[in-house]
Amino acid sequence: MTPEQILAAITPEARDEPDSGIVKAAMYGFTKQGIIALWSGEGNLTTPEAFARPAVEALLGGETFYTWQRGIPELRDALARYHQRTFGRAFDSENFFVTSGGMQAIQTIVQLVAGAGDEIVIPTPAWPNYAGALRVSGARPVEVPMAFQNGRWTLDLDRLFDAVTPRTRGISLNSPSNPVGWTASRDELIAIRDFCRKHGIWILGDEVYTRFYYGENGETHAPSFLEICDDEEQLLLANTFSKNWAMTGWRVGWLQAPRALGPAIERIIQVNSSGTPAFLQRGCVAALDHGDQFLADQVAMARDRRDLAVSMLGNLPGIRFEVPIGAFYLFFAIEGLADSAATVHRLIDEAKVGFAPGSTFGPGGEGSLRICYLKERSTLEEALQRFANWMKVQAARQSA
Amino acid sequence: MTPEQILAAITPEARDEPDSGIVKAAMYGFTKQGIIALWSGEGNLTTPEAFARPAVEALLGGETFYTWQRGIPELRDALARYHQRTFGRAFDSENFFVTSGGMQAIQTIVQLVAGAGDEIVIPTPAWPNYAGALRVSGARPVEVPMAFQNGRWTLDLDRLFDAVTPRTRGISLNSPSNPVGWTASRDELIAIRDFCRKHGIWILGDEVYTRFYYGENGETHAPSFLEICDDEEQLLLANTFSKNWAMTGWRVGWLQAPRALGPAIERIIQVNSSGTPAFLQRGCVAALDHGDQFLADQVAMARDRRDLAVSMLGNLPGIRFEVPIGAFYLFFAIEGLADSAATVHRLIDEAKVGFAPGSTFGPGGEGSLRICYLKERSTLEEALQRFANWMKVQAARQSA
Repeated sequence: MTPEQILAAITPEARDEPDSGIVKAAMYGFTKQGIIALWSGEGNLTTPEAFARPAVEALLGGETFYTWQRGIPELRDALARYHQRTFGRAFDSENFFVTSGGMQAIQTIVQLVAGAGDEIVIPTPAWPNYAGALRVSGARPVEVPMAFQNGRWTLDLDRLFDAVTPRTRGISLNSPSNPVGWTASRDELIAIRDFCRKHGIWILGDEVYTRFYYGENGETHAPSFLEICDDEEQLLLANTFSKNWAMTGWRVGWLQAPRALGPAIERIIQVNSSGTPAFLQRGCVAALDHGDQFLADQVAMARDRRDLAVSMLGNLPGIRFEVPIGAFYLFFAIEGLADSAATVHRLIDEAKVGFAPGSTFGPGGEGSLRICYLKERSTLEEALQRFANWMKVQAARQSA
Repeated sequence: MTPEQILAAITPEARDEPDSGIVKAAMYGFTKQGIIALWSGEGNLTTPEAFARPAVEALLGGETFYTWQRGIPELRDALARYHQRTFGRAFDSENFFVTSGGMQAIQTIVQLVAGAGDEIVIPTPAWPNYAGALRVSGARPVEVPMAFQNGRWTLDLDRLFDAVTPRTRGISLNSPSNPVGWTASRDELIAIRDFCRKHGIWILGDEVYTRFYYGENGETHAPSFLEICDDEEQLLLANTFSKNWAMTGWRVGWLQAPRALGPAIERIIQVNSSGTPAFLQRGCVAALDHGDQFLADQVAMARDRRDLAVSMLGNLPGIRFEVPIGAFYLFFAIEGLADSAATVHRLIDEAKVGFAPGSTFGPGGEGSLRICYLKERSTLEEALQRFANWMKVQAARQSA
C-alpha cells in the first residue's frame, strides 16, 4: 500500500494532530554537532547518584516483576510526606497515584473526565501536550488566550469563564505557566475554584513548576490549589519527578485525585502502562525523602539563570517579555517575527542554538520563542550570545 | 463531596469499566503470607544481570534526559536484527517504535485506528486489556467466542468475519493465545489477512507469545503475520520485552507499523508517555543481542512446566482443558464452576494459591480458571497440589 493509503486508514484525530513544535525542533537538531539545546523543559544536571542508586539496587536485586498499579506503597507514603512538608498540612497517601511520567498523569486525567466531544478550557500560550492529549482522545480543548499588555501577561477570568459551555468538563490551569511564567494569585485560584464548584466541573491543575517560584518573600512554592481545595472534591493534579529532581528521562510522575477514584484510576493505569517500574519508584522515594537540598539548589540556580537571561535578552532591540516569576522558561516576542517554527529551524542551522517555536503553544504564541534557561551559566551565556549575534546579522541584512 | 458525587462526575467509560479479574486477584492476594501466585503472566526468573547491567551503567552514567520519541536508534536497529534472525527475512528499523510496555503499544494501536464508536473484533476468551483499552477510549470491542468442543478450542472464521460491520476498523488476533494457548495456523492467518485486505480493515496482531510455541518439528516460533504480510500494509503488531526476557517489571515494549505512520505514532507517544527511559532501552538492546540462549532456556522450561501442569491437572476429576501448544498458561474448566472470581478469592484464602478467574477473559471464560505455569518446578508442583487438595475437600463436602 502507498503511504497515502495507509494514512487514510487511521483516525482523523491521529492523522491530523499537529506535530509538537518542541519535539520537531528537538528531533531536527538533536544530533547536530555543537548545538546548544534550550528547546526542552529540562535542566543540565543528570539525576543525582543518591536518587539513582536505590533504583540500581532494586533492579539488580531482582525487583523486576509486575507491581502495584497505583504505585508502590512506599512511594505513595513518601509523596504524602513530601506534600505535608511543602504545604504544611496533612495529606493521605491514598490520594496519590504513581504514573509513568507527568504526561501520563495528564492522559489519565483526560481519560477520567473527557469523553468524545467533551470540552476542556485551557488558557494559552500553553504547553501543547494537554491539548494534544485531549484531541487524540476525541475531546476538544477550548483555548482562551491570555493578554500580553504593558509588558505583563494577564488571564481575564471573565473571558475564561465565558468559554465554559454545557459540554465543558473542566478548566485546565498550569501555574506557574510553561511557557510564559505567569503564576495565578491565591485570589485567582479561589475564583476559579468557586466557579468550578458552582458549575460542577473539574479543576485540572498542573502545578509541576510550583517549587520554581521566584517570590520576593522567601516563598518555597507558588499559590496552589492544594492550599484552598478539599482533597475530596473535583480536583485532579498532574505532577512529575522530572523537573524538581532532574529526572526527565525516568518517566515517573504522579496524579493527585479524590480517593473515590482509586479503582477507576487503577483500571486506567492497567490499560495505559500496566504500572510504573517498581525499581524506578525506589529512586523516586529517595528523591522525595532526600532531595530537598538538591531542589533548593536547583531553584536558586534557576533564579540566577533567569536573571542572566533577562539581562541578556532585555538588551536586544525588538524583544519583549515579562520577567517570569515562576517555572524556568523565558518566552519572548520578537518584533516582526511571523513564522516562529521556520525561525527555530534557521537558528539551529545558522546559530547552532535550539529554541522552541511560540506557535506550538497555541493562540497568542506565534511571534515568540521559548527558551529553557535552566542550564550551566556559561552554556546559557554562550547560547544567548549566539542568538544576539544572529539577531544582529538579521538586522544588518534588513537595513542593508 | 461524597464518593458517589465524585464518581458521578467522571465519564461513564471510566466509571463503568469492569476491574480486571487478574489485577483484582493480584491486589487481593499480593501480600498474603505464603501465597503461591500464578495469576499474572510472568515467570519466576528475575531479569538476567546481563540485561540489567547496561541499563544500570546508562542510568549512573547520566543518560537521564528526554530521548527519542520513537525509541533510541540502537534499539530500533536491534529489533530489526532480532526479527531478521527469527523470521529469516529482512526488516527495517523504521518499522519499529519503542513503547513503555506492550500494553502501551496496544493503547497506541487503539488511538491510531479506533475513534469513539468504532469497533474492533476480538476472539475470546482473551486477555481483558485489549477490550479494556478500547472501552476506555470510547471504542467498542466486538467479542466473538471461540468454541471448545471435543477437547479443542477452535475459531470459527465465518463467525469471526460475520461480526465485521461498517463500523469495524480491525480484527485483533492474539496468537498464541493468552489464556487458552490456541494458535492460528498459517492458513487461518492467510484467511484473516485476505479478509482484512478485501475490506480495508486493520490486522491488529498480538504475537507476544510467538516464541513460546511447542510445535513438534523444532519450530522456534508460531505461524506469524510477519511471514505472510507486507510491512507496508494495514498491519499493526504490539509486542513486549516482558515475556521473552523476564522483564515484566521494566515496562518496555514495541510496536511494528508501516513507516508512513511514523509521525502519527511519534505524536501519540508524545502525549502518552513522552518516550521510554533511554537507560532502560540500553538493557533491552542487550536482551535482544545476547538473549537468545536465555529465551531458548525459558521456552524449554515452559514446555516442561506445561507437561507437569497438564499431567497434574489432567488427573483431577471434573477438569477439562486443551493441552496448549503456545504461550505459558493453562486454562481449564471445572465442572459446575459458576463464579470463577469468587472461587479465585476462596483459593487465595483457603488454599494459598493465586489463579486468575476465567470470567475476566470475556465470553466463553466463565467456569474456568487460568494459571501461569512458568514457575520453578517445585513451586508449580506445590501450587497444583494445594489446588488438588482443595478440590478434594470441595468434592467431599458436596458428597457429604
